[in-house]
Amino acid sequence: MTADPALLPEAYSSTTLSIGDFTTEAGIDIPGAQLRLFAFYDPADAPADHTGSDSPLSPADVVDRPVILIEHALTGDGNAVDWWPGIIGPGLALDTTRYLVLCANCLGGCQGSTGPSSEHPDGGRWGSRFPALSIRDLVVAEKQLLVDVLGIERLRAVIGASMGGARVLEWSLMYPGMVEAALPVAVSARASAWQIGMQSAQIRFITTDPDWQGGDYHGTGRIPARGLGQARRIAHLTYRGELEFDERFGTDPQEGENPYGPYWSPDQRFSVESYLDRQAEKLVGRFDAGSYVILTDALNRHDVGRGRGGMNRALGSSEVPTMVAGVDTDILYPYHQQEHLSRNLGDFIGLSKITSPTGHDGFLTETRQMSLILEKFLTKAELLARR
Amino acid sequence: MTADPALLPEAYSSTTLSIGDFTTEAGIDIPGAQLRLFAFYDPADAPADHTGSDSPLSPADVVDRPVILIEHALTGDGNAVDWWPGIIGPGLALDTTRYLVLCANCLGGCQGSTGPSSEHPDGGRWGSRFPALSIRDLVVAEKQLLVDVLGIERLRAVIGASMGGARVLEWSLMYPGMVEAALPVAVSARASAWQIGMQSAQIRFITTDPDWQGGDYHGTGRIPARGLGQARRIAHLTYRGELEFDERFGTDPQEGENPYGPYWSPDQRFSVESYLDRQAEKLVGRFDAGSYVILTDALNRHDVGRGRGGMNRALGSSEVPTMVAGVDTDILYPYHQQEHLSRNLGDFIGLSKITSPTGHDGFLTETRQMSLILEKFLTKAELLARR
Repeated sequence: MTADPALLPEAYSSTTLSIGDFTTEAGIDIPGAQLRLFAFYDPADAPADHTGSDSPLSPADVVDRPVILIEHALTGDGNAVDWWPGIIGPGLALDTTRYLVLCANCLGGCQGSTGPSSEHPDGGRWGSRFPALSIRDLVVAEKQLLVDVLGIERLRAVIGASMGGARVLEWSLMYPGMVEAALPVAVSARASAWQIGMQSAQIRFITTDPDWQGGDYHGTGRIPARGLGQARRIAHLTYRGELEFDERFGTDPQEGENPYGPYWSPDQRFSVESYLDRQAEKLVGRFDAGSYVILTDALNRHDVGRGRGGMNRALGSSEVPTMVAGVDTDILYPYHQQEHLSRNLGDFIGLSKITSPTGHDGFLTETRQMSLILEKFLTKAELLARR
Repeated sequence: MTADPALLPEAYSSTTLSIGDFTTEAGIDIPGAQLRLFAFYDPADAPADHTGSDSPLSPADVVDRPVILIEHALTGDGNAVDWWPGIIGPGLALDTTRYLVLCANCLGGCQGSTGPSSEHPDGGRWGSRFPALSIRDLVVAEKQLLVDVLGIERLRAVIGASMGGARVLEWSLMYPGMVEAALPVAVSARASAWQIGMQSAQIRFITTDPDWQGGDYHGTGRIPARGLGQARRIAHLTYRGELEFDERFGTDPQEGENPYGPYWSPDQRFSVESYLDRQAEKLVGRFDAGSYVILTDALNRHDVGRGRGGMNRALGSSEVPTMVAGVDTDILYPYHQQEHLSRNLGDFIGLSKITSPTGHDGFLTETRQMSLILEKFLTKAELLARR
């Protein structure tokens, strides 16, 4: 496979690239794996309100720019400007007039990268034949894409939150020579038992749905919508802070419904129930249940210490300057987990707290605070790159 | 109905008493409702290691003692010495040599009180015919039991945590003349949107299980075990602190299983998954799914402000000296909710924080701290009763 920067996508668009044959950490082959990659870049003089897709630049114009790799969260994808609004663009924290910003849909996903819903080389969909993935597998796949396919050898920064943050930590431990600086956000050195409990329960909701059909539901006309919806309801409650939820919904009944009636009824809901129903429906419409299982299981397997002499030894061995950020009201990755990273990382360069009623999703909702952290981080990263 | 203290149960045992016809707040009749009541008392000179059931006292010997009413939590029951070990007995915080300690299984429950699994007067089980209950309904039923059946007019204290704490607050607002002092623990003035979200999701897990059969599964040979188990897994994760969970389970695989294998498999679990599976099985074995739905829905309806001019006005109108306690790591009823009670209760006499990695269940696990709070509270309650 020959590295070719001209394979980079046009500005603010995506391309699907083969990364060749992939072998998982546990030894299973995925022949001809593909990743869908987005690239975000603008001319140096692009105005602040530029929205991107009509860039006069070609990929060849930007290959010499410092590269920022964004790592998306569980149900995110490569189109980072979509799920991280206000962060990526001309003059924004991830400044597309200065950087080549890349984001790939992860292996195992369902937004253009090879996953359980993809066609299997032997016919049909992968389904239950799709192997388990570790966070490290996701990182190896990205490395195959960036180095082997695109010929990118250096990353100014790798940045990500939640499952993205887990990949950031693994990038810094697996390929320290490529990563100039790392910013894991709202994540921990390994899955906690509580996370595994919540995540495993969600996997069970899906895999015990009769429509799961052992994972081979693709093309049968039935999908495990009920199980995936159940998983999303619970997951969303771990992503969102109870303070923000209460401000928005309180005990309000859903308009036209009465949850205080003489009998419990599924049609008489509180406003927050209706909201969660909508979240569930939206995810079922856009996300493959098989990908949800594979990636949630990858989060369960997340442990920087595995095979490296334990968690703190692994963190201590890190050679990449790493800044850490978290959200004060996060119940999924509580802030003490980021404090733990700050005490143990080998080249730690700062810890920042986002203050928010929103909980874990604060990295998405608190744009001003997140931008300050990113700007401070990239300034440091630039200084370090000049050393 | 004639009040008769001789109907009190023998020491450390229970009796099931008719409270007559009951009408819910929303207007549905439950004819001939019953509550199962436990009583705990010992002779004044009982030794500290006395275990109770061979008491030489009869109910008539203790009717003049000050009465402490304990309110159990969602899946608790009247047998409070069972679920609150180390708290009730000779010389313990709830001292059975000094007090007559009572605890009734709540209306809608499944441990001897009338609920969805009980026989309906017209035949068959109540099932879907069982009406929705509010926390206020549960309190009215207890008041019918204590006053109308047993002739008890004064309670030295009403004490309870979680759903029990919600009933304590309602006791103090509905029957202030009966309650000398109140201690709600790990609870809030009303359900929060996050709680309603978590609780409604659990109700949906059960009621969308095909074995639910619209609520009329009793006697069909099929019970919604899968849905109830799902609800319990999630509920348990909201009851337990992530710190304690991580100390106990971390990322340990279940013995003899390998959750890091080449494919995700339901048989290859982490230790915490196995633990949650066991919690789910245990609840399915001892608790009726219909009761779980009715009582969880009652928690959704919990709002001291409903029909009383709003939450803070209702709390401000309270005439009962009320002490409040909470757990610092509680994510289900976060400590700021108990701080809110402390700012707004009309006759507030103190706020105590239990420090624990255990989360919401800290009131069950931190026996020493809970005992200190109870002793301090009962000393105050006695002083207030003498005023």
